[in-house]
Amino acid sequence: MGKKRVLVPAKDVDLSTVKYESEILQAPHLTGFVFRLFVRIIEAPLIGPLLITLLKKQNNVDELLRNTVIPEEPMFKPEYPPQEKEPSVVELDEEGRPEDRVESALKCLPHYDPAKFWENSSAPFRYWKIRDYAYAYRVKKVTPSMVAERIISIIEENGIDKPPTPLLISFDADEVRKQAAASTQRFEAGNPLSILDGIFMAIKDDIDCYPLLSKGGTTWMHEVRTVKKDAVCVSRLRSCGVIFIGKANMHELGMGTTGNNSNYGTARNPHALDRYTGGSSSGPAAIVASGLCSAALGTDGGGSIRIPSSLCGVVGLKINYGRSSMEGSICDSGTVEVIGPIASTVEDAMLVYAAILGATLANRISMKPSTPCLPTLSFDDDTDVLGSLRIGMYTPWFNNVHSTEVSDKCEDALNMLSKAHGCEVTEVVIPELLDMRTAHAVSIGSECVCSLNPDWEDGKGVKLTYDTRTNLALFRSFTAADYVAAQCISF
Amino acid sequence: MGKKRVLVPAKDVDLSTVKYESEILQAPHLTGFVFRLFVRIIEAPLIGPLLITLLKKQNNVDELLRNTVIPEEPMFKPEYPPQEKEPSVVELDEEGRPEDRVESALKCLPHYDPAKFWENSSAPFRYWKIRDYAYAYRVKKVTPSMVAERIISIIEENGIDKPPTPLLISFDADEVRKQAAASTQRFEAGNPLSILDGIFMAIKDDIDCYPLLSKGGTTWMHEVRTVKKDAVCVSRLRSCGVIFIGKANMHELGMGTTGNNSNYGTARNPHALDRYTGGSSSGPAAIVASGLCSAALGTDGGGSIRIPSSLCGVVGLKINYGRSSMEGSICDSGTVEVIGPIASTVEDAMLVYAAILGATLANRISMKPSTPCLPTLSFDDDTDVLGSLRIGMYTPWFNNVHSTEVSDKCEDALNMLSKAHGCEVTEVVIPELLDMRTAHAVSIGSECVCSLNPDWEDGKGVKLTYDTRTNLALFRSFTAADYVAAQCISF
Repeated sequence: MGKKRVLVPAKDVDLSTVKYESEILQAPHLTGFVFRLFVRIIEAPLIGPLLITLLKKQNNVDELLRNTVIPEEPMFKPEYPPQEKEPSVVELDEEGRPEDRVESALKCLPHYDPAKFWENSSAPFRYWKIRDYAYAYRVKKVTPSMVAERIISIIEENGIDKPPTPLLISFDADEVRKQAAASTQRFEAGNPLSILDGIFMAIKDDIDCYPLLSKGGTTWMHEVRTVKKDAVCVSRLRSCGVIFIGKANMHELGMGTTGNNSNYGTARNPHALDRYTGGSSSGPAAIVASGLCSAALGTDGGGSIRIPSSLCGVVGLKINYGRSSMEGSICDSGTVEVIGPIASTVEDAMLVYAAILGATLANRISMKPSTPCLPTLSFDDDTDVLGSLRIGMYTPWFNNVHSTEVSDKCEDALNMLSKAHGCEVTEVVIPELLDMRTAHAVSIGSECVCSLNPDWEDGKGVKLTYDTRTNLALFRSFTAADYVAAQCISF
Repeated sequence: MGKKRVLVPAKDVDLSTVKYESEILQAPHLTGFVFRLFVRIIEAPLIGPLLITLLKKQNNVDELLRNTVIPEEPMFKPEYPPQEKEPSVVELDEEGRPEDRVESALKCLPHYDPAKFWENSSAPFRYWKIRDYAYAYRVKKVTPSMVAERIISIIEENGIDKPPTPLLISFDADEVRKQAAASTQRFEAGNPLSILDGIFMAIKDDIDCYPLLSKGGTTWMHEVRTVKKDAVCVSRLRSCGVIFIGKANMHELGMGTTGNNSNYGTARNPHALDRYTGGSSSGPAAIVASGLCSAALGTDGGGSIRIPSSLCGVVGLKINYGRSSMEGSICDSGTVEVIGPIASTVEDAMLVYAAILGATLANRISMKPSTPCLPTLSFDDDTDVLGSLRIGMYTPWFNNVHSTEVSDKCEDALNMLSKAHGCEVTEVVIPELLDMRTAHAVSIGSECVCSLNPDWEDGKGVKLTYDTRTNLALFRSFTAADYVAAQCISF
């Protein structure tokens, strides 16, 4: 009684009264036998739901979902309000050919000076960017087939390394050789398909890349879901000449942010082999960070590109929802998940982004996303495009870190952006952060359970890791009304 | 194990193989003490959910929701694919003034011949249509104040009738008199606001009509939800000069299709006082059918305008989702519920529809509904606009009726449409009808629970009727994943 909480309409919130609240999660810390027993209990009828209800109550999850009056209407998919065209951008034609979009993106990049890369090779390790490969292929320093052999040998060695750091879940050396040979031939004939021709990429295991299997990091997904063709994103890259080295490791079903995968072993952070890569796109980030590929495709519904990219020190782009197609990915019917590039530089992320762009017809009709565009980084007119950026900083959140080493590094980056490029850093306040977290978990979790349900009912649940099963037990406890309430919160 | 069902993608369904399946619901038939005990049991922790699960299993509800692979992506709100402009229609400006839209609608109507109505008055009962009132006011046969007194006296008598048939839940004679006097004055000054000036309408009890309370048919809703102004639809009608007689009876919270309301008594069918009006817009339909008002506003999320309109022999229009604004109604954040007109003729429904039109800014941005239009019924060029209609008929469903009296009447109407107007009646097949029903119940039920939850948790649940509580117990059992699955089915 009297438990009702009423939120203020978003437009009426008094930002000066908003207090940052740190999230304090109370959950038992369990390992080994006790953990496995706990999972069995929360999966059991009657006692399981009761225990989950208790844990949720302890963490005030139900407060948002059941006791709160949220004045906003539900917004199920992110919406694109009309927007003015930004200055210094190039619009990309999402209905056109990927090769043409990549060509447009290429024109946005700063001038490429091969000398900088090739004549200063004293560094013990350097990332080969897309344009480094492209240059090398065109001046015949190297062929895609030669690069393929190096990559294949590294991957094959990698499997017997101690500790093993399984970057790929599916790998077929002959398949890589075949693609590389075709690319080599195109260069010999003087007809590369685009700047991406002969560029090696890894594809996260939840995105279809024919003829390899899509297991989503599980042991059984490929038994119930056949790969008949490339995912739309992969097919766009393939038409640009990209060579796919295999299906990159990931947190099982993307349901975690460490990248820990007990089915295939855990991809390790190339910068420190005793550390996690972060996840769920663990393999894609590790492959790029190790320098094996210039870029990879990951998926992100709650940080799954952003987290491993930052932990591995590479560039990850969570593209806007609906900007590209999820067709041919395991998580193809959610409202948060996107496919996006991970690369060693912003430039390479831009080139891959341009290739995979293009909303589905259904989303183009229903969401009408604004025309995608890229900033012109070509600096020819001496204006620094970064100078027009305003960066929002929520200081108490920014400083809520395990170690100030992290926030210090971030502050250095901010200082660099504001001092060297003239970006404006503005203090912002984000109200209802904890509510947003709950709403996000309910959304992504419920959509995941929905797509897994038929196989779960079919007995596949017990083949999942205990880690995943713990998450699923929580996600299965959300009610339909919880889901609708979560959509009334923007996150 | 092996329970997985896989639906064929909508575009690949072989219609020749679709079999009509009649819905057979298995549920205990309970009344009196046993029924009340049953409600207490299904609301109890542990045993309640268990019993509901059992009932759902018996009716294969979980088959769709948990065991079925649905190949379509979820579609949360109905979408408006691009459409060519229809022939012989007039487009209405939804951003303009309601009075102007009503004026455009008026021009679509057939020529009005007062003689037909006024000089042939031997019939014992006739419905006064909007244009009959409008004519009478303009030629000063009668004033809105005179009509108001008649209506007030009928409503006041009606409360003491045996059996009582409470058409209104909130009624304030002085409020009606005040509005009528203002309208009368406008006519005296020769300045009526529109063809709707002085037209009496009833508003369903879940739509705000200031200063009356909105109880939604419950005994307590007005205690937790204050009415501060008219709902947008009501305010549009008010600016056209409409006079509101009060808040019409309804099935509690719209959660039923009979119109039975034990809180305020049940509005009865004016054609047979021992029969239901149908619901949930019971009062609006009964008020129009009784001739008390030319039109009323109802709400419809699953037949709540259409059912009582057909049972009461009047015209009900469930407008397209998003066409108008739900702001100021109790069910303002669902994905199926709309406000629409109930009237004694199609013409009057058109006039009211034109007045209440206008998507909210949010829906205009996110849904981009096509421009609303009305058919020109003015017949001046001898073309019958109805002749261009194609009517789909799913014969096995059409004939699945309790009594052939019903289907015979419907068949007569179809024959009339095809013979007198040249409409084409085409046999259609609707696959997955049962799945659609489940999906609909999950959607509307979950959205209802979501908006009720804070008050339920606040102890208001026990103040609802046992009828409503039975529905809520079912609706509360749907999981978030069920809700997402339901959105993958079009209904």
